[in-house]
Amino acid sequence: TQQLLSGRAARPKPFRVTNVDRSMKKGIMADVLEDLINKVRDSLDVSCVSALVLDEDGTCVDTEEFFQTLPENAVLMVLEKGQKWTLHPNSPPRDQLGQR
Amino acid sequence: TQQLLSGRAARPKPFRVTNVDRSMKKGIMADVLEDLINKVRDSLDVSCVSALVLDEDGTCVDTEEFFQTLPENAVLMVLEKGQKWTLHPNSPPRDQLGQR
Repeated sequence: TQQLLSGRAARPKPFRVTNVDRSMKKGIMADVLEDLINKVRDSLDVSCVSALVLDEDGTCVDTEEFFQTLPENAVLMVLEKGQKWTLHPNSPPRDQLGQR
Repeated sequence: TQQLLSGRAARPKPFRVTNVDRSMKKGIMADVLEDLINKVRDSLDVSCVSALVLDEDGTCVDTEEFFQTLPENAVLMVLEKGQKWTLHPNSPPRDQLGQR
């Protein structure tokens, strides 16, 4: 698979990466997942990246294959050990439970 | 096996697979249902997959034909023996119970 992927000559794509409390968001170019993780480490000053998840629903992006399906400017959240993804407070309201 | 499967023509599609309590969600590429089940077993550390169901409404995905109709990034839930699907707490309000 490694050959296959490198043979495909993935072009760098822009991603937007936020930290766990969404206090910071950076635009980062990367062609492969490992590249993005390395750049996130430097750019967001995260010494030990535990996971990259999709900001929208917390889906863990941990394979190169899945990473390659992400669209340009996909928003990712970097998690360090012990940190957990939470739904964005401004995400589209899907429940009406709060409205009584 | 990878070669064998790719010979079957279905191209890998991205799926998002969650566990029964939705504490973990992984992005997984798969071309056929069996492929997805195998990857779920490894990726979500589920030793014995009892069923894959649609997260949105608990529809059991147990035939290759139906599996092939799923869109990219369909959200599935993996169930182990004895586990049951429950409605997502943030799912769109489809009942009128709240409207009095």
